Amino acid sequence: MVNKLENVPEILLMGPGPSCVHPEVYKALAVSTLGHMDPVFLDIMDSIKELTQIILNTKNRCTVPMSGTGSAGMETCFVNLIEKGDKVLILENGVFGRRMIDVATRLGAEVDSLSFKWGTPVIVEDVAKKLKEKDYSLLAVVHAETSTGVRNPAAEIGALLKGKDTLYLLDTVTSMGGIEIRMDDWGVDALYSGSQKCLSCPPGIAPVSFSERAVKKLLDRKTKVPNWYLDLSMIIHYWEGAKRVYHHTAPINMLYAMYQALAIVVDEGLDNTYRRHMDNHKLLVKGLEEMGLKILVEEKYRLPELNSVIVPEGVDEAAVRARLLSEFKIEIGAGLGDLAGKIWRIGLMGYTSSPENVTAVLKALKACISK
Amino acid sequence: MVNKLENVPEILLMGPGPSCVHPEVYKALAVSTLGHMDPVFLDIMDSIKELTQIILNTKNRCTVPMSGTGSAGMETCFVNLIEKGDKVLILENGVFGRRMIDVATRLGAEVDSLSFKWGTPVIVEDVAKKLKEKDYSLLAVVHAETSTGVRNPAAEIGALLKGKDTLYLLDTVTSMGGIEIRMDDWGVDALYSGSQKCLSCPPGIAPVSFSERAVKKLLDRKTKVPNWYLDLSMIIHYWEGAKRVYHHTAPINMLYAMYQALAIVVDEGLDNTYRRHMDNHKLLVKGLEEMGLKILVEEKYRLPELNSVIVPEGVDEAAVRARLLSEFKIEIGAGLGDLAGKIWRIGLMGYTSSPENVTAVLKALKACISK
Repeated sequence: MVNKLENVPEILLMGPGPSCVHPEVYKALAVSTLGHMDPVFLDIMDSIKELTQIILNTKNRCTVPMSGTGSAGMETCFVNLIEKGDKVLILENGVFGRRMIDVATRLGAEVDSLSFKWGTPVIVEDVAKKLKEKDYSLLAVVHAETSTGVRNPAAEIGALLKGKDTLYLLDTVTSMGGIEIRMDDWGVDALYSGSQKCLSCPPGIAPVSFSERAVKKLLDRKTKVPNWYLDLSMIIHYWEGAKRVYHHTAPINMLYAMYQALAIVVDEGLDNTYRRHMDNHKLLVKGLEEMGLKILVEEKYRLPELNSVIVPEGVDEAAVRARLLSEFKIEIGAGLGDLAGKIWRIGLMGYTSSPENVTAVLKALKACISK
Repeated sequence: MVNKLENVPEILLMGPGPSCVHPEVYKALAVSTLGHMDPVFLDIMDSIKELTQIILNTKNRCTVPMSGTGSAGMETCFVNLIEKGDKVLILENGVFGRRMIDVATRLGAEVDSLSFKWGTPVIVEDVAKKLKEKDYSLLAVVHAETSTGVRNPAAEIGALLKGKDTLYLLDTVTSMGGIEIRMDDWGVDALYSGSQKCLSCPPGIAPVSFSERAVKKLLDRKTKVPNWYLDLSMIIHYWEGAKRVYHHTAPINMLYAMYQALAIVVDEGLDNTYRRHMDNHKLLVKGLEEMGLKILVEEKYRLPELNSVIVPEGVDEAAVRARLLSEFKIEIGAGLGDLAGKIWRIGLMGYTSSPENVTAVLKALKACISK
């Protein structure tokens, strides 16, 4: 039988994720598989938790890498924290905010949403007004909206909730490891992320962290979590305590990769990592502007790790992406939802974020647009 | 920082899974990550589907590796096929049958269960009687009960449902690749499995297959699937058709590993694979009996890939397992639930199933029991 894996090309992944995987993370993936109750593996699990806490700036004991991709992280937070009829406010300015509305509605929440123009951030004053009208048991927002390249004001939204009973849920799929997250300082009660963005690990793991308040809400539920696989009230007993209780077989090798990926970020130093992301972002924007291209998002709300570029009139955006991939072995992303056909998304996430890669994508894009 | 991955020992995994990973599968894990919409990756996805269909003996178009472990496969089947108030019959003779009851109940099904003594198979006549009393929209059973080592009569149970509207759901986590599965011939409507048993791939992927009848039930639902992440009605549009629709970012490298693992089984030939499992099982049982040990399950219901051994009186079962692991680098499993402390579970799954490994575990077990 032909082995199709022999023909997998090496692609420079500069889309919205997955990003390029760090060479040490590839090595970690192929480390000998251990049993999910092996003491050596349990020790690695402890380190995964500690490294995650460092990057998120949290002391939360309930900090667990869920066995699924970023969307499983979203599902985890909602299914554990919502009961039928709970009043939920979702701030939406992109595909992933919209997905939150879908997830929460399916779970029987009474969902209100505040929408903002895609490509612009959440307006904090509008949220403050909405919070005066009604009491919510949970407010959710995306920190780094992957579909638009916008950074939402996560700290400011958190400040509005101070002293309230409303739980604060933050999507950090595209922010973790790329821009600062201060979970405890911002008053975030629940947070999820993904392995395949600024952590430079393949997709498949979703870090989740719950504050003491969120854990209390979970343990005080009137009904069982309607999702056995993602029930954190059981999963925490596998991730902490002297006696670990088996829940489901953990994805051992993906967790090795996650351990390695988190360690690389912490070893580089968080400030250094964020500075590198910002420097390469500025280099990219400068080059794009020199080519006459425009960025969708206003400067102060831009994500350094995800750059939305407006497709110039008369340019076939799909043809440019196809040529970048086939001729230059560079992948960039298309627009999603309301922005389909209107933007490209250029990722500078984790290991991908280097001056060399910025130069490569600028050169290739120039060649593809000019004819 | 100390890299804990450098200290991971090579363990002979002879427990209930994960099993030893095939060397080619380790290589596959570390192949360059592609984007989830890359045409080369989409082509590998097609092969994963075809190889899965071959091993399951099914023509089902809806054959998809879910982005989670085996338990996510269980969750997927129930959450897509059950609506609140549906009448479900679950046949239970072990931990995983019991887990099905929990999963289905959380989803609001009206669950009846028929329990059988752990270590013995489902009695087909009892099921026939139960089916005469009431109409069920779904009947579920575990094919290879990992907690006991029992093979349930999947074909015979399927025959009882012929001509009925009841959907037939089968757990094949520990059977896939170890014993024959004839999904279409047995009338199975929905099935899930796991990557880390007889497929010799690390944990993290759950193959799922739905018959046309199951897909119709899914598409005719009155309510949306209350789990966005596992909603097959959306996920199938990523796995088939000319235009693939993004749902969530697929776990690329785990899917490479799954492709490789499935290809190895198909390359060996299904009959050869099953014969190898049976031959090594017989070798193990012979050796265990020569040591005076007894197998929990009656001969004709034994799983070749999972052998439940009764712990002899006066032997500290946990101490034996600990010594096997530390001194001989061999992992075997403990009993679960009702069988905790009473049995060991010795897996001979996939790549682990070889005469050399049988010899190794027999020799080590002898040494650990004798003093």
